[in-house]
Amino acid sequence: MIPTRTVPDVLRRARDLVGPAVVDALALLSPEVRPLVEYHLGLRDEHGRPATGGAAVGGKGIRPALAVLSAEAVGAPAQAGVPGAVAVELVHNFSLLHDDVIDCDQERRHRPTVWVLFGVGRAIIAGDALLSLAQHVVLTTGGQPEHAGLAALSLADATTDMIAGQALDMAFESLAGVDVERCLTMEAGKTGALLGCAASLGAILAGAPRPEVTALRDYGVQLGLAFQAVDDLLGIWGDPRSTGKPAWSDLRQHKKTLPIAAALAAGNGGAHELAALLAADHLDEPQIARAAELVERCGGREIAADEARGRLAAALAALDRVSLDSRAREELEDLAGFVVVREF
Amino acid sequence: MIPTRTVPDVLRRARDLVGPAVVDALALLSPEVRPLVEYHLGLRDEHGRPATGGAAVGGKGIRPALAVLSAEAVGAPAQAGVPGAVAVELVHNFSLLHDDVIDCDQERRHRPTVWVLFGVGRAIIAGDALLSLAQHVVLTTGGQPEHAGLAALSLADATTDMIAGQALDMAFESLAGVDVERCLTMEAGKTGALLGCAASLGAILAGAPRPEVTALRDYGVQLGLAFQAVDDLLGIWGDPRSTGKPAWSDLRQHKKTLPIAAALAAGNGGAHELAALLAADHLDEPQIARAAELVERCGGREIAADEARGRLAAALAALDRVSLDSRAREELEDLAGFVVVREF
Repeated sequence: MIPTRTVPDVLRRARDLVGPAVVDALALLSPEVRPLVEYHLGLRDEHGRPATGGAAVGGKGIRPALAVLSAEAVGAPAQAGVPGAVAVELVHNFSLLHDDVIDCDQERRHRPTVWVLFGVGRAIIAGDALLSLAQHVVLTTGGQPEHAGLAALSLADATTDMIAGQALDMAFESLAGVDVERCLTMEAGKTGALLGCAASLGAILAGAPRPEVTALRDYGVQLGLAFQAVDDLLGIWGDPRSTGKPAWSDLRQHKKTLPIAAALAAGNGGAHELAALLAADHLDEPQIARAAELVERCGGREIAADEARGRLAAALAALDRVSLDSRAREELEDLAGFVVVREF
Repeated sequence: MIPTRTVPDVLRRARDLVGPAVVDALALLSPEVRPLVEYHLGLRDEHGRPATGGAAVGGKGIRPALAVLSAEAVGAPAQAGVPGAVAVELVHNFSLLHDDVIDCDQERRHRPTVWVLFGVGRAIIAGDALLSLAQHVVLTTGGQPEHAGLAALSLADATTDMIAGQALDMAFESLAGVDVERCLTMEAGKTGALLGCAASLGAILAGAPRPEVTALRDYGVQLGLAFQAVDDLLGIWGDPRSTGKPAWSDLRQHKKTLPIAAALAAGNGGAHELAALLAADHLDEPQIARAAELVERCGGREIAADEARGRLAAALAALDRVSLDSRAREELEDLAGFVVVREF
């Protein structure tokens, strides 16, 4: 049996395979749109000059690795998953471009966001262009037309779910109470859908049977929810030195995340005190520290940690339902552990 | 031979066929997004109550009629074109929602635009949702997977072209000179691409051979350009009583349309005077009237009218290249005349 690769090797290999294909896809953008996207990815500065520090596949490259492994998991070559990986990266960046406008975020990775530099209109257009380009990529390079069509549908539906999640998140701003159930629904849309799509797209493009595709998608959705629960924990208790954000960041920003929703649902004195604190427009440092303490005391931290562990177990269990290539499967298991087990 | 229907009959029949299918598609939108889209279409008021005066298929229904006729033109039943018609309507409304944000348009059909009432973020989300829904519709109801996949690709690529056209239009704002060539490229993207898609999507879904599909698309693209040239003429010289806009509307709004670009390109004294006028931030009534006179005197009106006539002829010539169902073909010809021959 071929030995499994380490997680860093799996990620590096996927970035190496997918990065050039993303660059090829970006070349199809119109001359007015392409520089904005390349700026967004850190490949160019705001004057269109080549920049260092960016990459066609940014971050750790979890999504492309999932797409590539999902092809291998059903016995296809890694290359079969590449169009899916490219498409998922493009959809991810579509959502970042639009979310930055929607959330009025002024910075991303320590650089001004596209709408800040180029205007809201151009940021919208750039996102729109990536969404159409993603469909173009799966439909033209996704192999057999029938498989490519199914992949395009999976991509469109994951995008729909992401958008629904974002819409629900926006509705939370004006909702008196955000309950745990709706919070999980929102996170399933915002994070689960695209990871579920990434984790099954390679298998879909390879023409895998439905049970394998469904199991891989479930793995990805659960992994996304686990990832999001960890992110929510780090958003409050993450070490500023590793998150790059101030302590209690999500409480500062009045985000309604799982630990906060769970704490508010406790319905006890602490929950009432927390609700009163969060209703204020501005909190000073001692109040933010007190809010974090209350979230923990009302069980929000423990519930989110349980959620992360439970979703990780569910992700791994999904892989048990079908017969997959043993190496790819082990690598998917390792990747799940890597994604979820961060400090919290 | 079955007699051809009149243009109003063709349009009415398409609206009747496609309207309910659009309503079915809208039911798939998330509860946070659907009311915004229904408000946009005039089906509901801003409080979500059913409203009168709107329609799932707004306007004259040219695009749905093209999609339906394009199926019939290749010998398929009208119904085969319906998923394509629905998808094109959804993409059209995606572009309206985003364009209203981009252009800061406060009103559409005498009602506040979605971003004005619900915020920029929600208007972006609503547009995004329609784009993904359009792909879902062709891929799930578009008949044979191979045909549906080709239809999805045609839709994605038409969307890409529309976006590129919009991006070029935005670039014009900051361009010293807008030349005729770039203006036509912009209009081909903004108007030609989606009409070309509509006019071929029914045929694609019906599995028609490539020459028929290409001829029908060319017909639609040329028709779109003819339509846009007429729109540009009406934007300056249209009768306010029929356009619903003030006289010389496009000059007031500093739009760079074909007659204006053509007049500026004349390079004579009148063109220089026009350029100087248009460079001002604000024009008073006599200055606007003078600008309109200069556009005409520098040949802009004649060039745009020639363009409309030439593109109409090219649209009709495209239909001559292949063998099509004679009734559908005659109806496509009649529709072209109807679209283009407005007062100018």
